[in-house]
Amino acid sequence: MSVPRLVDHAERRLAIIGAAWRLIAARGIDATNMRDLAREAGYTNGALSHYFSGKNEILRASFEHVFNATNARIERSVGQRRGLAALRRLCREVMPQTEETRLEARIAVSLWQRALNDPYMAAVNAEALDTWRAQLAEYLRQARDDGEIGDVDEMLYANLLMTTMVGLQVTGVLDSESSAAAQEAMIDQILDSARAAKPSRRGAKARRR
Amino acid sequence: MSVPRLVDHAERRLAIIGAAWRLIAARGIDATNMRDLAREAGYTNGALSHYFSGKNEILRASFEHVFNATNARIERSVGQRRGLAALRRLCREVMPQTEETRLEARIAVSLWQRALNDPYMAAVNAEALDTWRAQLAEYLRQARDDGEIGDVDEMLYANLLMTTMVGLQVTGVLDSESSAAAQEAMIDQILDSARAAKPSRRGAKARRR
Repeated sequence: MSVPRLVDHAERRLAIIGAAWRLIAARGIDATNMRDLAREAGYTNGALSHYFSGKNEILRASFEHVFNATNARIERSVGQRRGLAALRRLCREVMPQTEETRLEARIAVSLWQRALNDPYMAAVNAEALDTWRAQLAEYLRQARDDGEIGDVDEMLYANLLMTTMVGLQVTGVLDSESSAAAQEAMIDQILDSARAAKPSRRGAKARRR
Repeated sequence: MSVPRLVDHAERRLAIIGAAWRLIAARGIDATNMRDLAREAGYTNGALSHYFSGKNEILRASFEHVFNATNARIERSVGQRRGLAALRRLCREVMPQTEETRLEARIAVSLWQRALNDPYMAAVNAEALDTWRAQLAEYLRQARDDGEIGDVDEMLYANLLMTTMVGLQVTGVLDSESSAAAQEAMIDQILDSARAAKPSRRGAKARRR
């Protein structure tokens, strides 16, 4: 009785979500049914229903877990960094460059179409994009205050970076020409133009404080 | 007997694709089956099979038709324009700003996940993205030669514009904050930084020619 039952339940749900990811990534969402999900996770259909009410609940939980996993990595990777260093760390955890982030991109692409007709999934997606956009804007404000970039509209730049990374989720798994170097070059181009902008008065003030 | 049978067949296929679009956009791809598709198009199941072998063939044809429809609009809209004027016309036909282009974005988002596990759809998607990227690069070369922009890496900029527009297909239909103005602002920002780049020697040479 060392592990409380609630934690056990949550852990088993995570293991089932992991199995769902593998199947969705390998076969596609339409070819993945509850029976196969149960088998992949090592459960009978009946035992699986103790953890999830059906395929849709597993998909919703998978979608949330993609964002939670990315957020946890961002937090670890950013640490105490701020400004452009922090921003680059965030981008690197979102862009599909590693086996893990490419798997996440496949899940995102698979589930966006569901979000079109599932308000719950749409809300999960909106919250994730809003969170990252707000973080990007905050790092850009820090970069401006620290004089790393000029006086740019941080919401516009955050929006452009976020939209680029959403696009990369698609091209990263569907466009054979997409590479980590090509992805980085796009982020670099956006940040280069922020650096080339005229210095901010607010930034100068902040630096004098 | 005024309409040849082959044209008739092609027209009927287009009408069925139109019905498929409406259903997919309204209900989602998973909730759309052949019986509903037949009813929406005004056919019996048996009659529909004269035009398409099944749901997957309708989806593949729909995906191709999205790109063909966009390309036809681009050609009409660009006309004899070149450089940045042509580039802006292309972008406007791809970005989800009107009822028509928002419907196309819903189709694209719905079918990208299928392309992950369907090499035919993946090839259709790759060809469309490659075509637009090549067109964007050509317009950027023209803009550089005409002195509209500085000496930029046109492939990098074409890639960034294309990736941004792919991202906008997703956020345009899933992010409530997405607006035509916000979309245009992102393209403007990318083009502004191309304009701010140092003039090209090649451009200067071209202008002297």
